[in-house]
Amino acid sequence: MIIDDINRFRDDRNWRQFHNEKDLAISISLEASELLELFQWKSASEGISDIEKLKDELADVLIYSYMMADNLNLDIDSIIKEKLVKNNKKYPVEKSKNNNKKYTEL
Amino acid sequence: MIIDDINRFRDDRNWRQFHNEKDLAISISLEASELLELFQWKSASEGISDIEKLKDELADVLIYSYMMADNLNLDIDSIIKEKLVKNNKKYPVEKSKNNNKKYTEL
Amino acid sequence: MIIDDINRFRDDRNWRQFHNEKDLAISISLEASELLELFQWKSASEGISDIEKLKDELADVLIYSYMMADNLNLDIDSIIKEKLVKNNKKYPVEKSKNNNKKYTEL
Amino acid sequence: MIIDDINRFRDDRNWRQFHNEKDLAISISLEASELLELFQWKSASEGISDIEKLKDELADVLIYSYMMADNLNLDIDSIIKEKLVKNNKKYPVEKSKNNNKKYTEL
Repeated sequence: MIIDDINRFRDDRNWRQFHNEKDLAISISLEASELLELFQWKSASEGISDIEKLKDELADVLIYSYMMADNLNLDIDSIIKEKLVKNNKKYPVEKSKNNNKKYTEL
Repeated sequence: MIIDDINRFRDDRNWRQFHNEKDLAISISLEASELLELFQWKSASEGISDIEKLKDELADVLIYSYMMADNLNLDIDSIIKEKLVKNNKKYPVEKSKNNNKKYTEL
Repeated sequence: MIIDDINRFRDDRNWRQFHNEKDLAISISLEASELLELFQWKSASEGISDIEKLKDELADVLIYSYMMADNLNLDIDSIIKEKLVKNNKKYPVEKSKNNNKKYTEL
Repeated sequence: MIIDDINRFRDDRNWRQFHNEKDLAISISLEASELLELFQWKSASEGISDIEKLKDELADVLIYSYMMADNLNLDIDSIIKEKLVKNNKKYPVEKSKNNNKKYTEL
């Protein structure tokens, strides 16, 4: 499991002492911004100019997200499935097909 | 695979037309902020007050991240593994153990 | 007026062509993250370690915010005053004094 | 001065006890995301659909930014001017005119 690799990395450094959920949430947000920075001043249809950098930043978002899930004993696949069930209700196919409006505006 | 559930959700709504990588990066960042908002004005040692909300927001970060990976044909486990190899070099155990400094300050 | 200095900077470079509001909003968010990064893994009571960097990042948030206001012919002081009026209603003194709860939880 | 209105708002509620710089930085980032959310899934050339909401969110970014400056005894106009001087050096007119590249790529 990939979470075991992630935990080995932080446990080898004894870093769980720093990994409270608030600072993990900050870190997820900071890495998401570094990912977004790759698209600053670019048009939406422009291709990816630096795929290696994008892979690094997307991986950082995922690594911190997995750490938070692990801290709280959450199973990644389960929380995604539960959220998809909720999204299915918020965005019924007949109303949201070909429509990018928020559920509050549907 | 969980990515199949995610893709079914967006394909049922024909939403790939909106899911360019720039807007996915914006969406990852927005969901990361909604996750962080749960910790605003809270101390780092305070417990999680609303675990259901946290699960929702963390799942949203993951769902958009998986969509971006899927758009670009990136394998989640592979990009995480590659990043951990890089992090291992940036943060050698002997220098970074019990140390929360950035690699630029080590 | 400081906005004149800011506009001179961007007009000297003919940069208004890039400064649509969506990309300015992205830029405000990215600079806010660079500001937040200075506090990553630090305790809330720890002092500021690099005040020059903080001044730079806070100034960047303000510069892009002023540019957006200027693009949309918004007066900075007016929108702040109008928001304070709204906040006064959302957070009545008697309910919110010494209380850091959100208005939705008051 | 507008900062006096802002400080009166927080002092009436005795809120400086919560306004450490780390949580202010988080709040600036969260409000910047709420501003950015108004542009999610919109094209860059699309107009602003809800100018009142935009004014509110931009004002929130500014209010928290002014609070942080006030906490640290920073003068807003001075830090902006100092940053523009730095930006002038990083982005010489002859190299950056009509060019949206980062200074690291110029």
